[in-house]
Amino acid sequence: MSHAEPVKVEVGLGERAYDILIGSGLLARSGEEIARRLPGTRAAIVTDENVAAAHLDTLKAGLEKGGIQSAVITLPAGEKTKSFAHLEEVVDGVLAAKLERRDVVIALGGGVIGDLAGFASGIVRRGMNFVQIPTSLLAQVDSSVGGKTGINSPRGKNLVGVFHQPRLVLADTQVLDTLPIREFRAGYAELAKYGLIDRPAFFAWLEQNWGQVFAGGPARVEAIAEACRAKADVVARDEFETGDRALLNLGHTFGHALEAATQYDGSRLVHGEGVAIGMALAHRFSARLNLASPDDAERVEAHLRAVGLPWRMADIPGELPDADALLGFITQDKKVSRGALTFILTRGIGQSFIAKDVPPSEVLAFLKTSHPATLKASHPERSKRSRSERSKRSRSG
Amino acid sequence: MSHAEPVKVEVGLGERAYDILIGSGLLARSGEEIARRLPGTRAAIVTDENVAAAHLDTLKAGLEKGGIQSAVITLPAGEKTKSFAHLEEVVDGVLAAKLERRDVVIALGGGVIGDLAGFASGIVRRGMNFVQIPTSLLAQVDSSVGGKTGINSPRGKNLVGVFHQPRLVLADTQVLDTLPIREFRAGYAELAKYGLIDRPAFFAWLEQNWGQVFAGGPARVEAIAEACRAKADVVARDEFETGDRALLNLGHTFGHALEAATQYDGSRLVHGEGVAIGMALAHRFSARLNLASPDDAERVEAHLRAVGLPWRMADIPGELPDADALLGFITQDKKVSRGALTFILTRGIGQSFIAKDVPPSEVLAFLKTSHPATLKASHPERSKRSRSERSKRSRSG
Repeated sequence: MSHAEPVKVEVGLGERAYDILIGSGLLARSGEEIARRLPGTRAAIVTDENVAAAHLDTLKAGLEKGGIQSAVITLPAGEKTKSFAHLEEVVDGVLAAKLERRDVVIALGGGVIGDLAGFASGIVRRGMNFVQIPTSLLAQVDSSVGGKTGINSPRGKNLVGVFHQPRLVLADTQVLDTLPIREFRAGYAELAKYGLIDRPAFFAWLEQNWGQVFAGGPARVEAIAEACRAKADVVARDEFETGDRALLNLGHTFGHALEAATQYDGSRLVHGEGVAIGMALAHRFSARLNLASPDDAERVEAHLRAVGLPWRMADIPGELPDADALLGFITQDKKVSRGALTFILTRGIGQSFIAKDVPPSEVLAFLKTSHPATLKASHPERSKRSRSERSKRSRSG
Repeated sequence: MSHAEPVKVEVGLGERAYDILIGSGLLARSGEEIARRLPGTRAAIVTDENVAAAHLDTLKAGLEKGGIQSAVITLPAGEKTKSFAHLEEVVDGVLAAKLERRDVVIALGGGVIGDLAGFASGIVRRGMNFVQIPTSLLAQVDSSVGGKTGINSPRGKNLVGVFHQPRLVLADTQVLDTLPIREFRAGYAELAKYGLIDRPAFFAWLEQNWGQVFAGGPARVEAIAEACRAKADVVARDEFETGDRALLNLGHTFGHALEAATQYDGSRLVHGEGVAIGMALAHRFSARLNLASPDDAERVEAHLRAVGLPWRMADIPGELPDADALLGFITQDKKVSRGALTFILTRGIGQSFIAKDVPPSEVLAFLKTSHPATLKASHPERSKRSRSERSKRSRSG
């Protein structure tokens, strides 16, 4: 990919407004882009061992070209790093580097590093400057934009954090070529999500062009830019998630529950895979509630299958807790309000909406019919058959 | 003291505006006041062992009268509780109580509990409702108002936290009668601070009426209300401390350094005492820099002495680190910008200002002359004598 001028997407948040730059080779010009916006700043780079091995030297050289000195805090890779212990480690590292409020914390990594470093930058000295350099597709199209930061609790995912907007996001599409394909695919789930929320033409475009997005080139840059535009629109409308922003949680209530149910074990399920299954479940659940046509659920499932993503609970290796336990993970999730459950449901592709009064009993019944223990022998083409027939087959299989 | 209608002070922060109620017997009507503002809320009370013994039953009964159920999280008393470990404990307790975003965390205690519980409420689910019920004078006139929350780091005090405004502050002046006199005095230092910042008439009033404030009665309520008005004015002008709010740090740069130098050991120095010494030092330092008359420094020192507060480093029991080490604590403090030091200095009583370019060398020289090792034999009436003479006496003593 050539190093053309990056595409710029602006996040319109008044005095907290910032740019997302999307393009190839941005690591090398990071110093120039940051120094232009934060003159005289010093930096602490937060990264993980894997990303450091692949990209840290390029970033440090890029920063130095812009006159920015940097300290480095390197953490273990993986979801388990989003913990209180590592938060304390990052906070201490930033303080040890004697950074001041107007200096900058730079997250170089995927969603885990971005969420953790963003949280640390939001609480050191009650808020320092922050720059996101997302190195996974998932982080480029989702977690690096919008200011949500946080860590996990033993009681659930992302239950602790702050809203803290970055001053700049640099999405270098070149670094995605070093990703394992499984991780790229997981990020693709969040990318497709924007089509399913309210951009049906984008989803249709992805159904046709997903191969080009995986291959790299202009289609990849355009897909990421479109996802960032979609996210920036929602964030500008609702920075603190008091309304529309909840639409971004499409697939996340089921997804988070499945991540918790698999103890955040990335060998079984990574976040984007949880979202993929969660989106398919949200569409299937909407069909079950007669809100949407089962054909739309089929279309979502078919596209996820086509790109190689898991789309049902049975695709998760190993045993899952039963439906009651899964519901328990959902009710501990933060999108709970006065006992009634809030879900993002849909009336069809690109017609998602916030449903605030979903009865837990309906969720439980749906989880039971969708559970691998029930569906053990099921295949997608059987999903239109009656529940009693499916149940019989399952027992006989 | 009669249970008259409380005095109300409004903190004008737009959609984050809230009331401070000051009066006797407010614990008993806490449920009514909270339920009026947050209908249908549930609560987690965060408190310490000492405060719980004295006031928890009264608060719980008051909440129940307003129909508010509450869980309780009780922590050890003392500054050391403002740590990452206890933050994690409070966060986990709030999550264990299954509170939702619109439920409320109530801080029942002094500044330590208020800062810690406020921080926890600011990060659980990225921000829950929060109510301050300060039970120390210091917390009533300072830390409970304005939304600063945080914990200490081994590298310095209050280096980690967020801005998170309470929805209501209930300052029950009756609970202050259970305070040890030393703690009441320490809070008085922050109260007098508002006179020294920009209300010279208030300082003069305190010089005449401080005995009534200690004794209780209408003078106490009025003094606390005036301090809250002063603080609310500054906070409304500068919520996130990008300008004028720094004036509230009068006495705090020296004070924090002394607290750090005594390892936050409350048996040697509590926060308000550090601020008292810090205010006296700020006035003396201003006189040394020819910004203010030494007579104003004398007046501040005399008033602090009159009420029984420490006013110089020599009043701290035990050995202090040397001046170079004290300067090291100051430069790690958060009010540092690009190597030059920011101090709150003064042109006289009620004429404080933000000085952004104080040379560390001047601070060091001042710390050396003020250090107990130098001043061992000195008395306040000698402070007008020349430095060389004082230095000679010190060596000979």
